[in-house]
Parts: sequence; C-alpha cells; structure tokens
Amino acid sequence: STPIRATLFPGDGIGPEIAESVKQIFLAAEVPIEWEEHYVGTEIDPRTQSFLTWESLESVRRNKVGLKGPMATPIGKGHRSLNLALRKELNLYANVRPCYSLPGYKTRYDDVDLITIRENTEGEYSGLEHQVVRGVVESLKIITRQASLRVAEYAFHYAKAHGRERVSAIHKANIMQKTDGLFLKCCREVAEKYPEITYEEVVIDNCCMMLVKNPALFDVLVMPNLYGDIISDLCAGLIGGLGLTPSCNIGGGGIALAEAVHGSAPDIAGKNLANPTALLLSGVTMLRHLDLHDKADRIQNAILNTIAEGKYRTADLGGKSKTSEFTQAI
Amino acid sequence: STPIRATLFPGDGIGPEIAESVKQIFLAAEVPIEWEEHYVGTEIDPRTQSFLTWESLESVRRNKVGLKGPMATPIGKGHRSLNLALRKELNLYANVRPCYSLPGYKTRYDDVDLITIRENTEGEYSGLEHQVVRGVVESLKIITRQASLRVAEYAFHYAKAHGRERVSAIHKANIMQKTDGLFLKCCREVAEKYPEITYEEVVIDNCCMMLVKNPALFDVLVMPNLYGDIISDLCAGLIGGLGLTPSCNIGGGGIALAEAVHGSAPDIAGKNLANPTALLLSGVTMLRHLDLHDKADRIQNAILNTIAEGKYRTADLGGKSKTSEFTQAI
Ligand SMILES: CC(C)[C@H](C(=O)O)[C@@H](O)C(=O)O
Ligand SMILES: CC(C)[C@H](C(=O)O)[C@@H](O)C(=O)O
Repeated sequence: STPIRATLFPGDGIGPEIAESVKQIFLAAEVPIEWEEHYVGTEIDPRTQSFLTWESLESVRRNKVGLKGPMATPIGKGHRSLNLALRKELNLYANVRPCYSLPGYKTRYDDVDLITIRENTEGEYSGLEHQVVRGVVESLKIITRQASLRVAEYAFHYAKAHGRERVSAIHKANIMQKTDGLFLKCCREVAEKYPEITYEEVVIDNCCMMLVKNPALFDVLVMPNLYGDIISDLCAGLIGGLGLTPSCNIGGGGIALAEAVHGSAPDIAGKNLANPTALLLSGVTMLRHLDLHDKADRIQNAILNTIAEGKYRTADLGGKSKTSEFTQAI
Repeated sequence: STPIRATLFPGDGIGPEIAESVKQIFLAAEVPIEWEEHYVGTEIDPRTQSFLTWESLESVRRNKVGLKGPMATPIGKGHRSLNLALRKELNLYANVRPCYSLPGYKTRYDDVDLITIRENTEGEYSGLEHQVVRGVVESLKIITRQASLRVAEYAFHYAKAHGRERVSAIHKANIMQKTDGLFLKCCREVAEKYPEITYEEVVIDNCCMMLVKNPALFDVLVMPNLYGDIISDLCAGLIGGLGLTPSCNIGGGGIALAEAVHGSAPDIAGKNLANPTALLLSGVTMLRHLDLHDKADRIQNAILNTIAEGKYRTADLGGKSKTSEFTQAI
C-alpha cells in the first residue's frame, strides 16, 4: 500500500537529533510513513510574515498530519511568534497532552494518568493589549462560543474514543462570570450529548491543589487557553517534566500536528545527549490519530520498557546513554 | 499595658468553633489582645451594599488588625461578593501566604518553605466583562503601575524583614507583553533598591512545573492576582491543603487582616470536628505583623508540636480528636 505522507519539522537545537531518533525507530517498526521534511528558515517569508515558510505550512495542510520538534527563538522576534504563528496559520484549536506516570521512572507520583485538552486559539492569547493611560494597561481575554464548543466537542469525542469516563471543565467562572461562564455553558451543552461520560466543573485554583494532592482524581480535563498552558505544565512536572510528555495539536480540516513542547536546549545540541522521548511519544499520538494503533502500541511499549529497564537512559533521566544508544535500545 | 484591640470575624459554618479555639489558645498564651467580634449579617447593609456591615468594616479600619474565619455564600449572591467586597472596601492590596511542610505530617513533599505574595486588587479580577456580539465575550485584565509597585515593595520589604534571600516574579509576559510586562518592570524597579536580595523572573507555566518537581527552588514569590490565586492553592496542596495554611491580607493605611482561606464546611459545622490550624496560624501571622514574635513563636511551636506528636489530630489529618481536644492539646 502507498505510504502516508507526513510533514516533519525537526526544529532547532536538539531538534534534528531527536527527529533522527524518531525516523530510525519508525523505520525499524515498519511504520508506513514517508516524511516530508521542512526546516524553519532564518529569513522571514513574505507570504507568511514569519520564519515559517509558506511551503512548510502548505505541507501540513496537504498531508494533514505532521510532527514538530522544538523551535528556537529567532533573533529579534519572540519565541512566541513561531508557536503562535503555527497555531494561527493552521487553526490549531485543541492542544492534547496525555500525561501518565512512566513505569520504573520514579517521581513523587506513581498514579498519574490524565489528558489535558487546551483551547489553543483565544482567551488571554488574543494579542489584544493597550495602554489606557500612563501606568494603566489592559489585556483582553476573549472567549467565543464557536471556539469553546469546538474544543469541548473534541474533548468529549476524545474521551469516548479512548474509553475515558470523566471530563472535567476547568474554569474561574466565579470571577470571570461572562468569559469562563460562556466556556462552561458550551461544555455543558456538549456534555448532554455524552450521557455515558461523567461531566464536572472544577475551579482552577482548587484543581491545582487537587492535582498535586491526588492526581488520580482526574481523567480528561478541558479548559481555556491560559489555564491549559499552566495545568499541562504542572501535570508534566508530576511525571518528570516536558522531556517526557507528548503533545498533539488538532487543527481545522482534520489536521493533527504532534510536537515536543520542551525547549531546543542549545547547550547540549549536536552532542548526542538529548532525550528524544517527548518527540517519540508525540509521534505515537500522531500514529493513533492515523488509527495505526498496532504500530503506536509497539513503539510506545518499546519506549516505556527501555526507560523502565533503566539500563539505557539519557542524562536527564539520570543515565549515561547517548541519544543514539537510547534510540538503539528502543 | 493596655491590650491591643483586634477585630474578629468568626464567619460561618465551622467559623465560630475554630475562632473559639483561637480565643482560648491566645488567652492561654497571654497574648495582649482584646477581640472585637463582628458577625456577618444576613441582611444587606445599605451603607456597604453588602452583607458586611458598616460597623464591621469600621472596626478593622480603626483597629488596623483583624482575623477572619470562612464566610459562606449568602443565598442569591456569589461567595465572591464577601471576599471581594472586603478586599475592595479595605483596599487589601497584598495577600501573603506562608507555606511550609509541617514536621511529622507526611505528604509527598517534605521540603516546602515558601511565601506567595499575591496582588489582590486588579488583574483578571477587575470585574470588567462584556459581550461584544452574540457568542463573543471579553474580560479585561487591568495592570497598573501603582498596584504593581505597591505589591512589589511589600514583597521585597517582607523578604528583607524575614531574612529571605530570593524574590521570584511570576508572569506570562511572553504572551501578555504589556500587562505582565508592566508588572515585571515595576518588580525590577523595586529589586534595584534591594541589592542583597536575588531577583528572578519565572514564567507561570514553568513555575508550576518547577514547584511540583522541586519546591525548594523557590523562596518568596510575587505575582499578579490570578496567578497568585492559582499558585497559592497549588502550594497549599504540596503541604496538605488549605486547612493547614495561613493567609494575611495587607491593606491601605497599614491594615493587616489575617484569614483562613478554606471553606466554611457546613457539613461538619457545630460538630466539634473542624481543624482550627489554618485560622490559628493566620492568627500567628497577625501577631508577627504586630511584632509580638515571642507570642507568635510560642503558639506556632505549640501547634506544630501537637501535629508532629500525632496523638491529637483532627479527622482531616487522619486523627480522631475533636476540635476542643486538639485545642486543649495545643
Ligand atoms: C512558548 C509559549 C508561547 C507557549 C505558550 O504559552 O503557549 C508554551 O508555553 C506552550 O505551552 O506551548
Ligand atoms: C472564593 C474566590 C473568589 C477567591 C479568589 O478567587 O480570590 C479564593 O479562591 C481565594 O483565593 O481567596
């Protein structure tokens, strides 16, 4: 059968090394994917007004599936711009982060198994800010019915498809009654269509307290943009950090762009020291999106077993292995 | 010498019982305080337009120091109103929450010792929200130079007075460049006046990840309102929850209003089962504010020793003691 074409943005810093690791492991597992690689340039593309070239965006739009490594801060531009530009250009409306304790890798928690689903296009990320008078500035938080319904639909759809039992909407509607109130209203509407899934609403401050006390209380969490930014990192911290957690962005027209959300670690770039786990597990979420569950299971098990055995671990996990040795072991 | 007059709002639910515990222990420790008790009524006071009576507010304004128990949600009004009304009426601009691991009370963390200082009057709590068109709502986040400088000043003053070495400003200025940018600018200005204190800036998502991985990385944290709401609860979760953490609000004209930030627990109210620790420790922060450090030390040690010994603990801490037995033991 013809292979599936998928876009690959290796990214900067350690990006190319960990992308190499993904390519080797996908090849060894005979995953029917043909990568279309695109590098982020150092010149602003006039058609996109950003470092993301028009070709690279077109590639994702055409393939509808892609994998993205870390992208460094272009000089004179915020790191913000590349991530936000991608989200905007590709209308990546939901950011999905599965987060579970890795067997054999000890942290203070061994019972984490949750999914955060973050609205990825609006809220405090509107970019609308201005100075009212000297010394008084304001930022606009925008919540729309359309974006809230869309991410809520995705969260319940995901919960059902993955056999999850509960969806918790995270909010601060006791303070932001209109914005977070609208978000909750949309979640409730969608919840009614999924009577088999338990729906609850949890205030963000209380949610964070419960997460650090007993993360097993949660299953799937859905929330506006900023809360998702905060809670997904908190959850990653519970199991060891961003080097171990996959992420996948769902966009308009069925696009899925998986990504490692950690930084590009320029200090260790090119030294064969990077941990490819987050990008690998992100690749696995991409395979699941393509319904290639056999391949996904095989690769995910190989990663988890290698980490659990403990013989081959990269330095960030307390081991001595090079990226290539860890990759070989998987 | 004449005793210091202090306002006491026992509050609702378990409030009166835990306030009774404070009064007994303060009496036993011969604290030179005379309480001026005020109950929150069930009628709206026309002069305050809220359930807080004009007399009760005047009492705090006159005494400049007070202690507040939990206040329940008045029917037909959000819980919000009472807390926010107090903050507004008394201009309580900084909320200070010390958070440290309690010796002998086991959680997943045993190395927590930090102070969160939260701007308490603006940010996402502006109350300014509106519908732009159907299905599109916005909330205004307001940051002012005045409020940011004031809370930053308080944080550095507190750090110096308490022998703390580092102040971390928590923000999301990579996204909200103008609002959180102004907050950071004010923190930097104040930091320059305290060269003996290390100053750093940490993005909120990264801060939450670091806090759950290694809270010992932090010392004093200062931040805008919503981040403070989230992070102070997260920190409370690290050491066991809101039942164990004190809180003190600093207001205009040198007011200090200490408070237990947990709920009024109507289910166990009047049953002699409540844990008075948060209100007691809040009382201790009030004593420190009054420079009554001997009394503060004595009471704080008695509380910590009683919890550490473990013979008398309330049900929420896994024990069987009644409120009165726990109080007696202290
Ligand atoms: C880098 C930053 C703009 C970004 C965000 O805030 O969304 C990051 O924290 C993330 O979660 O992808
Ligand atoms: C009850 C609520 C309005 C309040 C807040 O959001 O400030 C509470 O969470 C707190 O931290 O005191």
